[in-house]
Amino acid sequence: MDSANIDTVRPAPDATPELVKADVKALVSLCEPDMVDINALITARMRSEVAVIPALAAHLIAAGGKRLRPLLCVAAARLCGTTNTHHHNFSAAVEFIHTATLLHDDVVDSSQLRRGKVAAHLIWGAPSSVLVGDFLFARAFELMVETGSLRSLDILSKASAIITQGEVLQLMKAFDLTLTQADYIEIISSKTAALFSAASESGAVASGASEEKIRALYSYGMNLGLAFQIQDDILDYQGDAADLGKNAGDDFAEGKSTLPLILAMAATSGSDSAFWERTVGKREQKPGDFQHAQGLMISSGALDAARSVARGYADMARAALSLFDQGAWRQALESLAVYSVERQT
Amino acid sequence: MDSANIDTVRPAPDATPELVKADVKALVSLCEPDMVDINALITARMRSEVAVIPALAAHLIAAGGKRLRPLLCVAAARLCGTTNTHHHNFSAAVEFIHTATLLHDDVVDSSQLRRGKVAAHLIWGAPSSVLVGDFLFARAFELMVETGSLRSLDILSKASAIITQGEVLQLMKAFDLTLTQADYIEIISSKTAALFSAASESGAVASGASEEKIRALYSYGMNLGLAFQIQDDILDYQGDAADLGKNAGDDFAEGKSTLPLILAMAATSGSDSAFWERTVGKREQKPGDFQHAQGLMISSGALDAARSVARGYADMARAALSLFDQGAWRQALESLAVYSVERQT
Repeated sequence: MDSANIDTVRPAPDATPELVKADVKALVSLCEPDMVDINALITARMRSEVAVIPALAAHLIAAGGKRLRPLLCVAAARLCGTTNTHHHNFSAAVEFIHTATLLHDDVVDSSQLRRGKVAAHLIWGAPSSVLVGDFLFARAFELMVETGSLRSLDILSKASAIITQGEVLQLMKAFDLTLTQADYIEIISSKTAALFSAASESGAVASGASEEKIRALYSYGMNLGLAFQIQDDILDYQGDAADLGKNAGDDFAEGKSTLPLILAMAATSGSDSAFWERTVGKREQKPGDFQHAQGLMISSGALDAARSVARGYADMARAALSLFDQGAWRQALESLAVYSVERQT
Repeated sequence: MDSANIDTVRPAPDATPELVKADVKALVSLCEPDMVDINALITARMRSEVAVIPALAAHLIAAGGKRLRPLLCVAAARLCGTTNTHHHNFSAAVEFIHTATLLHDDVVDSSQLRRGKVAAHLIWGAPSSVLVGDFLFARAFELMVETGSLRSLDILSKASAIITQGEVLQLMKAFDLTLTQADYIEIISSKTAALFSAASESGAVASGASEEKIRALYSYGMNLGLAFQIQDDILDYQGDAADLGKNAGDDFAEGKSTLPLILAMAATSGSDSAFWERTVGKREQKPGDFQHAQGLMISSGALDAARSVARGYADMARAALSLFDQGAWRQALESLAVYSVERQT
């Protein structure tokens, strides 16, 4: 049934990559039949006799988010013409791993909001958030083991270790004014892009794709993840809490050395340098500082430069798909790459 | 090389189970060649470019503890005559999972001491403890995946989910005076015995043992874990901080409904009941309360009764080994079962 779906939605062969629109809807629509099963699997595996576990997990998972990682896994498997449903298990697993890291991150960062809702640790307490994160992580591995795909298990267990190293590195480097652009890329490669690439790579592996296609989808996910995270970090200096579903200005308040901040600091001097030294270096922030920071981000050209870097990664993501035939799945993934850097929420 | 070791240490065939001594040394000695490799593997896999990770992990892992779970895994594999070294990976993995849960537990419980050292979160902060725990958990799965033993992976991923459910259940039931003995057994089956049984079962599975032997070693681990945890909970009302390497009285201070407390409350009335209601039910504790609680534990016979329950589980653990031939490994595991309930530290 699933391979029939692919053929019926194949677009005109003359689709021009250059005209690709920033759009996630095409991908969501293509993935819908798979996502129905995946969402059912997610709900089933959140269950526990210990009532607080599904309640807390549902608070975050039901709030939605973009489900980008499951979509990536499904699209990779479908693009490679999978004939099994292993990608359902891997999709649920990557969403669980992602949710677990969000739960732990919010405890680590003492965040107030997540996906437009009060952060779970403020409702159920940090201990429950830590333990339910652990539970989801364990459940993710149960889901993977059921497929019997050792190679996908290898990919996702390695990615999980890389993610936590990225998180720790970011924690160590908070309020560190000496962080370079290369350090930043290393951090977001680990903490964000590693799970994007693991999602697409494991989807390809689970479908029995060729090594060439597996490498291409790994590269797509990695570059997409980098583009996506940079745009996230840009939006943190642009949006407000209502738009983003999280606190805009959080990165500034936490002193996170993101690309906009690194580029802005590199491009400023004099009293502006003193501003960054006080607000980020010494963590002395007062009302109005964030708005001043936003102004400096624009006037220094830092936001534009960061956007340009993000677009470069999005272009690389699209280029990685060149070995695949034109078709609905490829086009949807290209649109996702453009969307990742053009989105405003 | 390894099967030779087994034969050379085989004891006289007339060893009598009834005379088994409370002893962990025989097991430690038998496992030493394996443990050299396992400790090297543990050290190698703690490594990370992010310096705080090995530093924090080493603080806990190097502090030692009894390494009971790796010893169990090795003994199970050797008892079943394994001819490979998969049990090295599983032993390192169970130690990592155990260490990860300790790191998270100490954050959850705000514990001050662990293995006689200041708890890691008080040195590196709770965020680092949470993330390094996650790192070790991910590394555990990497180690398991390398063996290619899907069934052992299945056992340990399921055990990981069960452990976290037990932890959450315990958290929810803190200061709950209505907790029954059955609730308590359910909690410790999950939070402690599940990893003991997974260690011994996965060792048996990795060795290619028969279903009968796998079941027997699962049962041994489960009953040993129950006995071990009950004795731990008894010691929390007996020992002092210096002896135990953790805070004696912690359970009382945290209002943990352990078997000694459940039995003591069931056996007391009048002013003693009011004491438990105030100190555990209402969390109103003052200096001298713990010493009074210790006194009630003895006078009510609760500690003796708890000890009797623990001995019952230790006996069941020993009984589970009856289908194995007499020999050094079986005898060492029997001694471990007796040791688990007779130890004073």
